[in-house]
Amino acid sequence: MKVIHEKTYEDLSRTASNIVMAKMYQNRRVNLALTAGSSPKGVYELMIPQMQGRDYLDNVYFYNFDEIPLKGKDLGITLRDMKNLLYDPAGVSDNHIVRLDEHTYPTQMQRIRDAGGLDLMLMGLGWDGHYCGNLPGTTKFADEIVTVSNEAVPGLAERIAKNHHINATDLTDYYITMGPKAVMETKELLLIINGKHKAEATRRLFNDPISEEFPATLLRLHPNFTVILDDDAASLL
Amino acid sequence: MKVIHEKTYEDLSRTASNIVMAKMYQNRRVNLALTAGSSPKGVYELMIPQMQGRDYLDNVYFYNFDEIPLKGKDLGITLRDMKNLLYDPAGVSDNHIVRLDEHTYPTQMQRIRDAGGLDLMLMGLGWDGHYCGNLPGTTKFADEIVTVSNEAVPGLAERIAKNHHINATDLTDYYITMGPKAVMETKELLLIINGKHKAEATRRLFNDPISEEFPATLLRLHPNFTVILDDDAASLL
Amino acid sequence: MKVIHEKTYEDLSRTASNIVMAKMYQNRRVNLALTAGSSPKGVYELMIPQMQGRDYLDNVYFYNFDEIPLKGKDLGITLRDMKNLLYDPAGVSDNHIVRLDEHTYPTQMQRIRDAGGLDLMLMGLGWDGHYCGNLPGTTKFADEIVTVSNEAVPGLAERIAKNHHINATDLTDYYITMGPKAVMETKELLLIINGKHKAEATRRLFNDPISEEFPATLLRLHPNFTVILDDDAASLL
Amino acid sequence: MKVIHEKTYEDLSRTASNIVMAKMYQNRRVNLALTAGSSPKGVYELMIPQMQGRDYLDNVYFYNFDEIPLKGKDLGITLRDMKNLLYDPAGVSDNHIVRLDEHTYPTQMQRIRDAGGLDLMLMGLGWDGHYCGNLPGTTKFADEIVTVSNEAVPGLAERIAKNHHINATDLTDYYITMGPKAVMETKELLLIINGKHKAEATRRLFNDPISEEFPATLLRLHPNFTVILDDDAASLL
Repeated sequence: MKVIHEKTYEDLSRTASNIVMAKMYQNRRVNLALTAGSSPKGVYELMIPQMQGRDYLDNVYFYNFDEIPLKGKDLGITLRDMKNLLYDPAGVSDNHIVRLDEHTYPTQMQRIRDAGGLDLMLMGLGWDGHYCGNLPGTTKFADEIVTVSNEAVPGLAERIAKNHHINATDLTDYYITMGPKAVMETKELLLIINGKHKAEATRRLFNDPISEEFPATLLRLHPNFTVILDDDAASLL
Repeated sequence: MKVIHEKTYEDLSRTASNIVMAKMYQNRRVNLALTAGSSPKGVYELMIPQMQGRDYLDNVYFYNFDEIPLKGKDLGITLRDMKNLLYDPAGVSDNHIVRLDEHTYPTQMQRIRDAGGLDLMLMGLGWDGHYCGNLPGTTKFADEIVTVSNEAVPGLAERIAKNHHINATDLTDYYITMGPKAVMETKELLLIINGKHKAEATRRLFNDPISEEFPATLLRLHPNFTVILDDDAASLL
Repeated sequence: MKVIHEKTYEDLSRTASNIVMAKMYQNRRVNLALTAGSSPKGVYELMIPQMQGRDYLDNVYFYNFDEIPLKGKDLGITLRDMKNLLYDPAGVSDNHIVRLDEHTYPTQMQRIRDAGGLDLMLMGLGWDGHYCGNLPGTTKFADEIVTVSNEAVPGLAERIAKNHHINATDLTDYYITMGPKAVMETKELLLIINGKHKAEATRRLFNDPISEEFPATLLRLHPNFTVILDDDAASLL
Repeated sequence: MKVIHEKTYEDLSRTASNIVMAKMYQNRRVNLALTAGSSPKGVYELMIPQMQGRDYLDNVYFYNFDEIPLKGKDLGITLRDMKNLLYDPAGVSDNHIVRLDEHTYPTQMQRIRDAGGLDLMLMGLGWDGHYCGNLPGTTKFADEIVTVSNEAVPGLAERIAKNHHINATDLTDYYITMGPKAVMETKELLLIINGKHKAEATRRLFNDPISEEFPATLLRLHPNFTVILDDDAASLL
């Protein structure tokens, strides 16, 4: 585990963008799984002008590691958000996006392995220790790519709806996520954590026993795991 | 996880020796952690004539991953057994053996990291799911290198004494082991399992939930983990 | 460069087979380019019983790095020899053989790159410093996969015919080879050299200036290059 | 070879700084060899604020790959320039600088190997095809770390003196450089080329035969070689 402590969110975003961008410059296929959500906004703002119009990034493919399907919609919440946050402004074409969704999830693990595995996964940390869709009480360490019922955790559908500013009635009754085992197969894991509201989760990430009760504790066992923190997130360490 | 199913113990030993020997031929320092016990005897018998008198293996260093100290003895049980099984017949000199013992354990993790990390660990599997000294009830996933009281598990001192044909009174009151976190930092993990008496443990290794109750289940999460089984060990799969 | 000096051809073959076999045990596609000729016979004899009937080697693909087409024949000399030496006795099926021949050579480099590159190339050394089909006077360091006229070197067609016990009239007027640049793209290079008749070529390999006049000198610049020698080949060092 | 074509020197500098910075964030020792000269100024300007005060970069060590000693001075031209350009403003302490100079050069190659090898080398390209101190007529492909007489090329002492704004009488009679073989041992090579005055050298880099006459042509054979060009440098391609 490498811990990178930056003073500010701007510094954290710069450092994370260095890592993600540098991973792209290869003379072979590169597979990146990038998080939606608010934490990476600063990272993507730095990346977008460095990606626009760059033919030399034709070797890079983008994966989502979770998805919340919406009734009657082609795009779930994660892919919709990723298109807004990064893919559309950066000019990533659809044939460079390898969708995880309600149609593809049963075969996605094999698809990832056949493509040579994921080179890098950029994740955020939830207050409850979740990463990807691995909330406490939903997945087990041994899970690869799974569906999780929105009733697995009390009030989950409402929480999802509120977080994403939609009506709970627009949700199907499950979401999809790469589970702990699938995440641990990734070659390099990068976790970014910013803000005072993440300070307690950060403390637990480093100090709690490694267990499914605070799922992100498992990541400490990955041989190539980097955490980037800002001062606020690190304030209880 | 790569599963290699061989018919016989001889085939298993050949394949394991291919992997261990091939790891040695580098133009840089190579750090190997090899298990004592009965499972690797066939592996070492194949390795010994391939190591004797080979100056080109001067770059290879040997680590033990656990140790049971003996009262008033310089060598604990593991190192004593490794010298008998491999180091002495293969001609490994003492300055190529990086000892984990009652004197070195507090700083051994740093010593491993400063040397560039372990390149390969060859392990066996216990009927109770233990690997190295990680018996159920003794270590936690988050442990690096730790001491374990011989009273951590009922009857443990007697079990150790019996397995190693010594008097329990010759034992100190603890043993030393690389814990799960230290093992997971190794670049490549190799587990060999042979014999009918390991069939049930093998079944649990692959099928049990990943938990400290059957410690070796954790190894399934390592991105570079190989299991070699013979027909007997695989008979319940 | 790692130099492995073994006393005998048997030891040399054992060590080379350790390296080639160990490369195969992966949980991903493995691409091997293996030489025909007499030097590797001992290696393949050790490998064959370790490959027969092993489903767990389904991830391994075999490439030839040169080919001498024969008029009116589906198989050229190299592929024919490789089938006899290794593929047929080891049970390698045709769909795990990625042929380089008069039909495929223009696109073979791209095919190799799309498959993730070659993981290992096992080569022999010619008395004139050639490796693959890179004879002095035929290819340039910058060449990828090329055809070479059998008139590029005086008497070449006759030499090929004699070496392979065929009539020169059965040859087409060119052969195909991976050139120096294509070889240098391989992740790991392994060169085996045995016998007194190779002693002078071995001396030049290590001591000559790096130039197209003794083509194998270039291999010294590969960051992951291993040479295995027996006593006879090393006798002039 | 990966070719990254950027429109401007600013974009080129950003991309190069992404690669160099990302290489630093490791949980192990990182060895970087960085060029002096004018091409990397923009890279270092971006790196400096990202390096200042960062304890988490304590694992990074800096190497120079050539040196021009000055009579009676502790620091040669390269180290003096690197201190001005990067080390001093970024806060790199002397014990993280592994000096190549007139005292250390005979043992520097071994020192590099013992430290695990160089992870990345950032280089520029000379109009005459030189990289590091490998000018046409001075070094051979087989050279590791060597001294070169200032009389190896006519007018060389004067050219050095003029380029570095010093008197030729301040020079000793030789300079030191990592030769082609030493450079090729580096795990990753990064070459940045900017400006119209480099357009012809860039054209030759890609199109000339690989030979000591235009030394940088050799770099095309490294399996992990990246070139970053701006529009001006690429104008003759």
